[in-house]
Amino acid sequence: MSGCGAEHGLISIDQALALIAQTVQPLGREPVSVEQALQRILVDDVHAPVALPIFSQSAVDGYALAAARHPIDAGQCFQVMGEVRAGQVADVVLEVGQAVRIFTGGKIPEGTTTVARQEIVQLHVEQQIELTDDLAKHADIRDAGEEVQAGQVLATQGQSLGVGAIAALCMAGVQHVSVYRQAKIAVVVTGDEVASHVDELQQGKIFDANTPMLKAWCQQHRLDAEFFLVADQETALTELLQDLKSRFDLIITTGGVSVGDYDFVRPVALNLGFQQVFWKVKQKPGKPMFFAHSQSAERCCYLLGLPGNPAAVYVALQVYVSSVLRGLAGQSIAPAWVSAVLQHDLKPDRRERFLRMSAEIQQGQLQVTALKKQQSHMLSNLFESNFLLRVPTDTVLSAGTLLNGIYLD
Amino acid sequence: MSGCGAEHGLISIDQALALIAQTVQPLGREPVSVEQALQRILVDDVHAPVALPIFSQSAVDGYALAAARHPIDAGQCFQVMGEVRAGQVADVVLEVGQAVRIFTGGKIPEGTTTVARQEIVQLHVEQQIELTDDLAKHADIRDAGEEVQAGQVLATQGQSLGVGAIAALCMAGVQHVSVYRQAKIAVVVTGDEVASHVDELQQGKIFDANTPMLKAWCQQHRLDAEFFLVADQETALTELLQDLKSRFDLIITTGGVSVGDYDFVRPVALNLGFQQVFWKVKQKPGKPMFFAHSQSAERCCYLLGLPGNPAAVYVALQVYVSSVLRGLAGQSIAPAWVSAVLQHDLKPDRRERFLRMSAEIQQGQLQVTALKKQQSHMLSNLFESNFLLRVPTDTVLSAGTLLNGIYLD
Repeated sequence: MSGCGAEHGLISIDQALALIAQTVQPLGREPVSVEQALQRILVDDVHAPVALPIFSQSAVDGYALAAARHPIDAGQCFQVMGEVRAGQVADVVLEVGQAVRIFTGGKIPEGTTTVARQEIVQLHVEQQIELTDDLAKHADIRDAGEEVQAGQVLATQGQSLGVGAIAALCMAGVQHVSVYRQAKIAVVVTGDEVASHVDELQQGKIFDANTPMLKAWCQQHRLDAEFFLVADQETALTELLQDLKSRFDLIITTGGVSVGDYDFVRPVALNLGFQQVFWKVKQKPGKPMFFAHSQSAERCCYLLGLPGNPAAVYVALQVYVSSVLRGLAGQSIAPAWVSAVLQHDLKPDRRERFLRMSAEIQQGQLQVTALKKQQSHMLSNLFESNFLLRVPTDTVLSAGTLLNGIYLD
Repeated sequence: MSGCGAEHGLISIDQALALIAQTVQPLGREPVSVEQALQRILVDDVHAPVALPIFSQSAVDGYALAAARHPIDAGQCFQVMGEVRAGQVADVVLEVGQAVRIFTGGKIPEGTTTVARQEIVQLHVEQQIELTDDLAKHADIRDAGEEVQAGQVLATQGQSLGVGAIAALCMAGVQHVSVYRQAKIAVVVTGDEVASHVDELQQGKIFDANTPMLKAWCQQHRLDAEFFLVADQETALTELLQDLKSRFDLIITTGGVSVGDYDFVRPVALNLGFQQVFWKVKQKPGKPMFFAHSQSAERCCYLLGLPGNPAAVYVALQVYVSSVLRGLAGQSIAPAWVSAVLQHDLKPDRRERFLRMSAEIQQGQLQVTALKKQQSHMLSNLFESNFLLRVPTDTVLSAGTLLNGIYLD
């Protein structure tokens, strides 16, 4: 399957994404209450258990009336029999000439032929009201079921539940939904170069950007992740991955996937029985990316080995980790590419590139401008960047060209 | 200040936003660790405590060389004196004709004149290497400070810290930042019409969409909010608001702000000493919106009284609650309007409207299409909606018109 072994050379970004799509299988389902379902993905279509509105209700504060003929002429009077507030039973049955005071959302009493908003009603003594304007039949009534029929499909399989969807499900009385189980994610940061203290910086160490980046990204996406720091040593890495592969759905590693003498992630994973799906993508940043999977009795564990350079990790999160997670949640793995208008010329490169851009919409057009400091060990342009542009190989690109990219998140 | 009292009629959306901008003062500051700072807003500019890179380092796996002249011709040999891995001290000083094995990120030893990537190096016995290609001076070296100078401004006041910004701060060794204190938010849902059980639906009650909507929205935005459900009774509401106004920075109410006989929010707030900033905005949905503030010894408490209709609540969250929160966090309160191309004609309306749209970017153009079921008691189109279009009054709008709106979140 999925090109394991066959691909020794570099594959393209599209090939890598296609291999992810072929390889990743959705996780199982679990029931959650709708109030706990923010950003979760639906396993099934959801049908409305009730109609919306549930009953016919007033659209305004005013009076429900019963008239024999419509339109009712201004000046006509009605006898007020009572009051219906929102949330109360409308236990009166109106006869012609009768009215009840009613408020927005109040249940329309039986016998009602129309509703007069309070602005066209004059209240007299003895509970009598007079219309100050003509009134059509069935005015300002929200009919039961006019928005949604009971049984109608509200939301569909694969949909991510945002704030609006949660509210709409609750309004229809949906209390539980089946969602894809959340992936259990292990993040393994390799590398001896990470400083714990400022004092170590002069000894060739650097501050770790990858761990906080991955932590923040998991937090942002409400992902369940455990973090592990491991030295660049074969035995330590072997022990760790051996343990993780039966306990996690996805292992993300950073560093140690290139061809340096201390790049142990790939050989260790292969020794542990992981099947390679691909290794090395013809892209910049992030060429030595490694993707593999291991099927054990307990679970299928996917391993996405990212390079150690932080910009490569950042790009991989946006493009590849997101894709794998969408696949695990039963969605199309395809990144949400949108087309954008390049604001300047771009020099060609032999590899496809992901460039960090500043994007803004002007006059309805998505315009993108490349930021400086694009090298794979540089992150400082992320203070300004909100878009990742995908730049094809070997072409001189001029200002005005349409290219695909994704919004960063 | 801020038009309290002067505005008895309906004000425009722009006037309402301008009054919010004039009224809302930023909260105080608090220090947080960068790893806890996701989505928090910077109070001050942040300067880089160190240069990036911190020291000159190799950009590749290969060999650091010392040569007398450059370019070095292919065929020249060097004596390998040792090895520098990333994270290790480079304690050797190279003399002409010497080399060290070096890995990506490894600290460049003193005396180095260039770096040869391993692809152009042949290793002989006796720790001798031969170049298989010509090599320029200072190749594949990342110079100290080439990305960021120590002391340089990295991030600016008012910036929201996303995943990329967190990572970039960590890479520069920034461990703590000052952010605006998070608003303490109380959400008060009024209304007797909310059903606790399905059985109550036939008694004129409805399912509550506002509470789960507000909860999900606060969760999504990592906001600290407490929720209160109160009956449509003046005394109950008075007691609750009296208690809340000294404990919270922002009270959001839903329902009870219109002119119905049971709309107690505004009179109760005014009785408790809240000063009205505005009441009623010429918009659809959400006309009877109320904004007030109360300055006590403990704090300034803002009260945003939203209508009870769930679509009005949803729109107000996106437009007005967001604006107030941005103001409390020292940012410009202005919504992130972007211009979009309307895909069809639109009929005029006497009020400015917020329409729930489906937006997509095609050929670099943001195209928006209105969804059905736009009435203020309807939410079912939120399964498809990702954009809120702001439609001006009294104008026939034709397909192709550019209008402002905001992405929903």
